Amino acid sequence: MARLYHVPLSPFCRKVRLCLAEKKIEVELVEERYWEGDPDFLKRNPAGKVPVLRLDGITMSESGAICEYIEETRPEPPLLPKDPGGRMEVRRLVGWFDDKFHAEVTSKLLYERVNKKVMKQGYPDSLNVKAGAKAIKFHLDYMAWLLDRRRWLAGDVMTLADFAAGAHFSALDYTSDVDWNRHAVVKDWYAKIKSRPAFRSILADQIPGMSPPPHYADLDF
Amino acid sequence: MARLYHVPLSPFCRKVRLCLAEKKIEVELVEERYWEGDPDFLKRNPAGKVPVLRLDGITMSESGAICEYIEETRPEPPLLPKDPGGRMEVRRLVGWFDDKFHAEVTSKLLYERVNKKVMKQGYPDSLNVKAGAKAIKFHLDYMAWLLDRRRWLAGDVMTLADFAAGAHFSALDYTSDVDWNRHAVVKDWYAKIKSRPAFRSILADQIPGMSPPPHYADLDF
Repeated sequence: MARLYHVPLSPFCRKVRLCLAEKKIEVELVEERYWEGDPDFLKRNPAGKVPVLRLDGITMSESGAICEYIEETRPEPPLLPKDPGGRMEVRRLVGWFDDKFHAEVTSKLLYERVNKKVMKQGYPDSLNVKAGAKAIKFHLDYMAWLLDRRRWLAGDVMTLADFAAGAHFSALDYTSDVDWNRHAVVKDWYAKIKSRPAFRSILADQIPGMSPPPHYADLDF
Repeated sequence: MARLYHVPLSPFCRKVRLCLAEKKIEVELVEERYWEGDPDFLKRNPAGKVPVLRLDGITMSESGAICEYIEETRPEPPLLPKDPGGRMEVRRLVGWFDDKFHAEVTSKLLYERVNKKVMKQGYPDSLNVKAGAKAIKFHLDYMAWLLDRRRWLAGDVMTLADFAAGAHFSALDYTSDVDWNRHAVVKDWYAKIKSRPAFRSILADQIPGMSPPPHYADLDF
């Protein structure tokens, strides 16, 4: 069986979990306190971070590389369209969320509130939290702009771009950092993606000492 | 003709330039002061960063998405192997350089020394410069470990992983931030990649007010 070394609220791990679940690949989840630098783990990934996936006898890291591998070896159901322009758009948006959104929002809110606590690295920096809370509004506006023109983020079918975004937003929703009332079209998008079977394992996550808000796992939030 | 909005020392722009040149795609280079947030440029890429490539009537951004598009539409000469495991390894290393190396080295050395000056954002932070100078040693050691086992970074043929790494290293070499004497095998690798015709345009770059060291464009450095 596949094995994923992960932490529950990591958006990069969640993206891989969503891909695996959508493709119906069974996986054993192993929580990895990667910041402790266990030598056995560093052998699996000298970059010292999660996700690390063991699949088909290969030890993989870098969530982007992992998702492309899954797509290439398990093409059904597809998470990338067939035409190169459509694929570019999906990968552009995956980059948008995993790079820009991650730097401006996830690292400023989730990492300040959750990672610092879990890793015993002190208290949230209020300037970062403020900057993240401001930046997420711009991103919600951009998503609304896209979703006014498309059924899903990258076009008319669900793709890896929706999973990348859904992974970040679900983690931020655990700490009540998303204002779902800002744009009905974004809330509708999240309700659609949240109700997919692939999302079930993510909505069942529980971080010791940190309860999610009641709406977190509610499909009709 | 293709058009690339770029800045000369950006490793992400250089990676795209190397791909275009290796595939013999002619391109018009347009320098874009992206940090000034010109509204026309923001229409091309609302993320507000370079590279942005106009090709086949499509405006593309995110260097990873751009390189995959080029590879899919111009497969010769290939920059990704055919087998999914080999492709995963290439993409893992592209992620290594564009994410980890970028955060630990490029942003601490090149951005402190060059970007801050060009963008008029003050003086280099000496703590960052020190941290970058320390971190690049670990990365050179990891590359030597790989290159002791492989002819190129991701295997026995040159791939996008070599271009990603070459893009960062060539930019850092412009500011004399690479100790090429640390590992002969890494120096040999860089001499090999530097001598490819695709590298010519990059080695001809000149930043006003900042001359590269004499060895920068020397193929026999």
